[in-house]
Amino acid sequence: MVFERIKSEVIAHNSYLIGSENDAAVIDPRRDCQIYLDLARQNGLKIKHIFETHRNEDYVAGSIELNKLTGAEVYHGPGLPWKYGNTLADGQRFQIGKLRLTAIHTPGHTDESMSYAMADLTSGETTVMVFTGDALFVGDVGRTDLHGPEEAPRLASNLYDSIFNKLLPLGDGVIVCPAHGAGSVCGVNIADRDESTLGIERAQNPVLRMKNKDDFIQYKLAERLERPPYFRQMEKYNLEGPPLLGCIPSPPPLTPIEFSREMERGAVVIDTSAPAAFGGAHVKGSHSIWLEGLTVFAGWVLHYDKPILLVLEDQSHLEKAVRYLIRAGHDKIAGYLKDGIAGWYNAGLPIERLQLLTVHELKAKIDRGDHLPVLDVRGQDEWDAGHIENAQHIYVGHLQERQLDISKGRPVIVICSVGHRAGLGASMLLRQGWRQVYSVVGSMKAWEAAGYPTYTG
Amino acid sequence: MVFERIKSEVIAHNSYLIGSENDAAVIDPRRDCQIYLDLARQNGLKIKHIFETHRNEDYVAGSIELNKLTGAEVYHGPGLPWKYGNTLADGQRFQIGKLRLTAIHTPGHTDESMSYAMADLTSGETTVMVFTGDALFVGDVGRTDLHGPEEAPRLASNLYDSIFNKLLPLGDGVIVCPAHGAGSVCGVNIADRDESTLGIERAQNPVLRMKNKDDFIQYKLAERLERPPYFRQMEKYNLEGPPLLGCIPSPPPLTPIEFSREMERGAVVIDTSAPAAFGGAHVKGSHSIWLEGLTVFAGWVLHYDKPILLVLEDQSHLEKAVRYLIRAGHDKIAGYLKDGIAGWYNAGLPIERLQLLTVHELKAKIDRGDHLPVLDVRGQDEWDAGHIENAQHIYVGHLQERQLDISKGRPVIVICSVGHRAGLGASMLLRQGWRQVYSVVGSMKAWEAAGYPTYTG
Amino acid sequence: MVFERIKSEVIAHNSYLIGSENDAAVIDPRRDCQIYLDLARQNGLKIKHIFETHRNEDYVAGSIELNKLTGAEVYHGPGLPWKYGNTLADGQRFQIGKLRLTAIHTPGHTDESMSYAMADLTSGETTVMVFTGDALFVGDVGRTDLHGPEEAPRLASNLYDSIFNKLLPLGDGVIVCPAHGAGSVCGVNIADRDESTLGIERAQNPVLRMKNKDDFIQYKLAERLERPPYFRQMEKYNLEGPPLLGCIPSPPPLTPIEFSREMERGAVVIDTSAPAAFGGAHVKGSHSIWLEGLTVFAGWVLHYDKPILLVLEDQSHLEKAVRYLIRAGHDKIAGYLKDGIAGWYNAGLPIERLQLLTVHELKAKIDRGDHLPVLDVRGQDEWDAGHIENAQHIYVGHLQERQLDISKGRPVIVICSVGHRAGLGASMLLRQGWRQVYSVVGSMKAWEAAGYPTYTG
Amino acid sequence: MVFERIKSEVIAHNSYLIGSENDAAVIDPRRDCQIYLDLARQNGLKIKHIFETHRNEDYVAGSIELNKLTGAEVYHGPGLPWKYGNTLADGQRFQIGKLRLTAIHTPGHTDESMSYAMADLTSGETTVMVFTGDALFVGDVGRTDLHGPEEAPRLASNLYDSIFNKLLPLGDGVIVCPAHGAGSVCGVNIADRDESTLGIERAQNPVLRMKNKDDFIQYKLAERLERPPYFRQMEKYNLEGPPLLGCIPSPPPLTPIEFSREMERGAVVIDTSAPAAFGGAHVKGSHSIWLEGLTVFAGWVLHYDKPILLVLEDQSHLEKAVRYLIRAGHDKIAGYLKDGIAGWYNAGLPIERLQLLTVHELKAKIDRGDHLPVLDVRGQDEWDAGHIENAQHIYVGHLQERQLDISKGRPVIVICSVGHRAGLGASMLLRQGWRQVYSVVGSMKAWEAAGYPTYTG
Repeated sequence: MVFERIKSEVIAHNSYLIGSENDAAVIDPRRDCQIYLDLARQNGLKIKHIFETHRNEDYVAGSIELNKLTGAEVYHGPGLPWKYGNTLADGQRFQIGKLRLTAIHTPGHTDESMSYAMADLTSGETTVMVFTGDALFVGDVGRTDLHGPEEAPRLASNLYDSIFNKLLPLGDGVIVCPAHGAGSVCGVNIADRDESTLGIERAQNPVLRMKNKDDFIQYKLAERLERPPYFRQMEKYNLEGPPLLGCIPSPPPLTPIEFSREMERGAVVIDTSAPAAFGGAHVKGSHSIWLEGLTVFAGWVLHYDKPILLVLEDQSHLEKAVRYLIRAGHDKIAGYLKDGIAGWYNAGLPIERLQLLTVHELKAKIDRGDHLPVLDVRGQDEWDAGHIENAQHIYVGHLQERQLDISKGRPVIVICSVGHRAGLGASMLLRQGWRQVYSVVGSMKAWEAAGYPTYTG
Repeated sequence: MVFERIKSEVIAHNSYLIGSENDAAVIDPRRDCQIYLDLARQNGLKIKHIFETHRNEDYVAGSIELNKLTGAEVYHGPGLPWKYGNTLADGQRFQIGKLRLTAIHTPGHTDESMSYAMADLTSGETTVMVFTGDALFVGDVGRTDLHGPEEAPRLASNLYDSIFNKLLPLGDGVIVCPAHGAGSVCGVNIADRDESTLGIERAQNPVLRMKNKDDFIQYKLAERLERPPYFRQMEKYNLEGPPLLGCIPSPPPLTPIEFSREMERGAVVIDTSAPAAFGGAHVKGSHSIWLEGLTVFAGWVLHYDKPILLVLEDQSHLEKAVRYLIRAGHDKIAGYLKDGIAGWYNAGLPIERLQLLTVHELKAKIDRGDHLPVLDVRGQDEWDAGHIENAQHIYVGHLQERQLDISKGRPVIVICSVGHRAGLGASMLLRQGWRQVYSVVGSMKAWEAAGYPTYTG
Repeated sequence: MVFERIKSEVIAHNSYLIGSENDAAVIDPRRDCQIYLDLARQNGLKIKHIFETHRNEDYVAGSIELNKLTGAEVYHGPGLPWKYGNTLADGQRFQIGKLRLTAIHTPGHTDESMSYAMADLTSGETTVMVFTGDALFVGDVGRTDLHGPEEAPRLASNLYDSIFNKLLPLGDGVIVCPAHGAGSVCGVNIADRDESTLGIERAQNPVLRMKNKDDFIQYKLAERLERPPYFRQMEKYNLEGPPLLGCIPSPPPLTPIEFSREMERGAVVIDTSAPAAFGGAHVKGSHSIWLEGLTVFAGWVLHYDKPILLVLEDQSHLEKAVRYLIRAGHDKIAGYLKDGIAGWYNAGLPIERLQLLTVHELKAKIDRGDHLPVLDVRGQDEWDAGHIENAQHIYVGHLQERQLDISKGRPVIVICSVGHRAGLGASMLLRQGWRQVYSVVGSMKAWEAAGYPTYTG
Repeated sequence: MVFERIKSEVIAHNSYLIGSENDAAVIDPRRDCQIYLDLARQNGLKIKHIFETHRNEDYVAGSIELNKLTGAEVYHGPGLPWKYGNTLADGQRFQIGKLRLTAIHTPGHTDESMSYAMADLTSGETTVMVFTGDALFVGDVGRTDLHGPEEAPRLASNLYDSIFNKLLPLGDGVIVCPAHGAGSVCGVNIADRDESTLGIERAQNPVLRMKNKDDFIQYKLAERLERPPYFRQMEKYNLEGPPLLGCIPSPPPLTPIEFSREMERGAVVIDTSAPAAFGGAHVKGSHSIWLEGLTVFAGWVLHYDKPILLVLEDQSHLEKAVRYLIRAGHDKIAGYLKDGIAGWYNAGLPIERLQLLTVHELKAKIDRGDHLPVLDVRGQDEWDAGHIENAQHIYVGHLQERQLDISKGRPVIVICSVGHRAGLGASMLLRQGWRQVYSVVGSMKAWEAAGYPTYTG
């Protein structure tokens, strides 16, 4: 048996290829899907089935792309007006060589969510693995808030039933293969470990250890998760079928002059440097989004109709940057700045800086009574768990739309968990006209490591 | 958490690297151990511990090699006069970042065998994985025959206790990480699947489903496994510490003239071509050992003091061939034949052929009443499960020492499971002076696929 | 300055990427053109120009493919009704960063052939390199026979003028960058060395050392080169623009049953094993074409409308096999045999053999006076240079159309230079109904190495 | 024929592997010499000869390392008390397959310098390539100042004779293969192009176009090149044989705590981040040496007896950083900072900044009459070619030993060509106690691009 977990960074997405004898199936393929063809070739397999666990909202599904390349049939859950693929019935079975896959309807995250239980018939009929999509993660369960607060109680109730009445009964020994790992926006507390079983989750997953169904539902309703605006585009794509990608695009280098010209024509600049480098020097007007944050955070600041320009810390990051963007459907990448920011300032062009503050400097300022506004741009749950006294809270994704009640003549100090989102937030404020913007390196992680106090409520 | 299963082909050996925060541990490293350094570097980890599950007998352990490169401490089980490393006590604990490893003494395969239970403290105290060495495999359990028939009952009894009283009680949800996968000589029926749990094994592993301890012991005592002669050298190496390897050797190409000269000086020729190619043309006197059989079968025909010469089907196989040989301690590789067998016959040098027989031709010969001797060179268990009527049985490994009761003037037909060992056996007979040697392509697999009859007893 | 020679095996084709500052140009791109994008990305270059030296006849040009991916403009020589790209004038100049390319009309191989002289303006105006296409090779010059015997004298005369009046005057120090290396069907005696200069060629190239223009023309007219039938398709493609390829296809593995079914539907089987392996066992009806012979020799036996099936010596050869086929426009690859020939005979299916003969056995047969027909399938020039007494000569490419004057009941012995084309020829005879077909391993190379006599005339 | 140019970045070193039939030779191997074994394996070659063009002073030669791995003989020029290898005579010949190498004594850069002329006997006796070591580069010639001012006139005279009487007479068409490319400290104006011939050099190389021998010598004597202190160590190593390396070391990640502890014990910190990132945040006391400057500039600040600690911009840079250091013999690398500078400040540890100044800000300060000291740390030749008015000049390598005549209470502005050496110089001043240190991003390149004035004299 062949079993491959394909991890897509940034969105912490897991897809899977399973194979036996001559046949293979892929579960939840991503859009840049050459990797499945490569794995199939290396293992002498033919991809015949593509299974989706649900209509994904955080990335462009690669099902149609992979179907075009292999002829494999696409399958997904019931109840949505899909424009492609085949709709499954609960209990429907598939044979992939000597593997048997059984589709299980496990609504909750979404109404059409499916899980897939797998037995290895060479050993017996026992379920060996279950592909749980966004129903059950390692250490957490899926979001139930994506259809709005009215639907949330019903979805949470469904999810409870799916997990307790359909998944856990498969047996403690069953290996859990979820669609996301730690770092995904699709779960709050997903563990930083890929390997688990239903038994381990039953024993340790804090959400599964709620006293009863009511507690489970209340817990889910109390969650406060962000829903990036690009989710809507993903849902539309994944329902109707996204544009075909073909090969990965190879955007060209642009000289500083060409780059400026594209900026003047309305292209949006993303600088993927680390906070210290972005702080040291960047092109005026850039958004600071660290490389591993591209797929998720580009969706808050990019529009699908404007071309994208990249400033890379290292030219070797280009391929990753492109993959991370196209996974969220951002295909219009006009180019990248030749030789990065050094190419820019070597040409005598002006740069902008973002002041970096250490937590010690911030503490000293507060202790001095400077009364500088501190803007915490983390998510609601993170804020609730503890923040700096007198800080203000606006989630980074809302900085573009929400009115900031600080005069543009005053300094602003932006903070988040480790400094990445603070950098993005600070770069957005610089674009909006604030001139004295500080970003706190290390942010709350460093603050707490230094032993400084936090407050809740 | 970082979890990597490193599969070493040929001996179907699994080693593991686990890591958390800045620390890593390696379980049962192989000798060509750069891969652990690479994984550590890619994951930003420092290898601090090396755990051996037992004194391995089928490959050269890489513990000392890896210790020299990293400074990591080596640990192994109690009761052997180890010349390196540290001896563990049952229940001894280690912390690797946020992972906790607990050593469990699980004798049976050998007396000093250890398993290692791992908890991920970021999630809780539940055991998540257990590294079972050669105690418990997916679908099988370890051999208990290596210390001879007198010790076997005691070892089988110990193994039963280790599995039923120490491993299974860890819980159904625990993921099983054994030291071998399908194809190893260390187990009979290891499943062709790497992923399993104690729950799945309890439900499906045929050896664990024996009615009681007595049946378990009887089952183990009835097993008939081969013990290649190179095991002794491995046991000595792995007790005392093998010679350090350094970088992987890079044997040079040899022209046909240089190659012949080395042969005259006593070097042993191994031809790694597939059966059809070896049948078509080979250098007289070569042993036919297919690439993926090198580590195990070279041990039957090679001596540690004679240089080795390689004939490769494809020059790109060189690195694999070298790795496969050094894993069994065969470090004296004098070179490989430049341009393979084509380089040889293009130089006008004579070749030898090995007649290939299809199962249909064999059947026709038998039906005609040719009374040709058919020599089955599979293992005892395979022979017992069904063979061709009137065939003789000698295990391929014993062909060099056992007297073959067939006149050298007569034809001999050699058969095995799929034709690889038949090829080796046939090449050994050619070396010993038989002139009309046939090897059956596809062998018993093709024989059965064609629907021809087999006999037992 | 960036200078990359991209060598495409099989057709021994050289394409080039040159770059300076932000700009790059590609000369004679091949169809699987991701490599140019990769090189451009690694070097921070934007491909802006694509130059063709002539309408290629031996492979599908990648100009349109690369144009689609980069937007780079395509340029080629005058006088053909091109359906894409821009037509150049003699002396037209281009600037690629600090490099200056000057187009030079150098007819002879074809009427529209162009060369491109390159100066590196950072050092001066001296020509540093010249891209000579099929006009001038290392050790040889281009064919002048492709437009038929009527045109050959005029083309040879033009080629002389192009080389002596346009290329050599550029100066002895100019580095020569031709479109082909040793092994190409586009030249007879191309040296097995990529590096040369006009000075070295003037001194050592035997064709350039002819006494005068007349001798040069007579030498060219006396050449006897084969013109594979697929050339016509290539010429059409490269004039009008071939079908777009997109990603490299990934043909699936086929089980023996699926494979047989495709054969029954008319698919053509190509076995890429080495001669010894093909001789040992193959699927009845296969064509034997060694891997590195695919692009050129597939064109003699494949039709563009029938699907292709592959039997590979090693599954890792798949990607190469696919590239080699698509470079000649053979895009309809239906799949490859799972587990190769072993998968076939392991399933109990019948195999066919091809008898291999060593040169010593052949000599013995001849000396015994067996009077067996020996069929030499090399090219005319090779045959003329020396062959076995009483052998017959038919070029391998003509075996399908030419009547062989040997009864199907008699044995036939096929020979070539080293045994590859002999294998192909022998497999074609087997398909046509001869039953006793022998292929001589090592062929004339081994024959001569063994010191056996050859005859001319 | 196989010809491979192996380029080692940082020191812009070229080594070469040439091969024919079964044999190969390597010219001027580097210390991390696995690459030659890999190339030999890929091409089916046996490395039998190692040729040194001279006792290198800017890197550790890999001759002994490669000799240990292959058994190949080492050869070098006459007149030095070598502790290994064989000494050549002028005109001595070697055959490598069908290639013929002729050793030519070409003193000038050093007294024992050798060149090697190569003919390809398959084509004729004409010299095809010449390996010129540090005698002749593309666009420049070798240094003649390394044995001090007394020896320089004699060496320059010898170099003239070697080039004009021994190399150029080989013929315009000969391809030049020097030991260095653009960026090396072994030449002043080496062209950024690898491909050249004696004819092109004769026509374009400005040093070869001097009117006569006297002008040539005067030109050489007027050159002012830096001689890093590590040269002495290299010369000793390369005369006596350096310590054997074995595999490339794999230094471990260190937590901030472990890292601090090593610093306290005297380890030296090298931060390889780009200027903007180092400016934004770094560990107090670090030396700023950009990745591609490591081999050369580490030699100015590192001692061979103190352990080295690395702060990397990206963890993927580790392997490069290690290679760049060991090429200059810096083998004692204690580890690298886990997660780089972010790991440091996330742990709440204090950081230091280096103020970055744009050329516009610098110009504004100067125009305002701030009279801030501007320290230009480029080489003498660069300074002489044009600098900012009133700047002071100290070469970066001398900052540690030379007394800086600026009060530690005053600001200092450091400038170089593009900002790399300015960053190093500024970091050295910070270590020495200046607190207001500025580094000019883009430095003189940006200054000139912005159109600001420079002065000479």
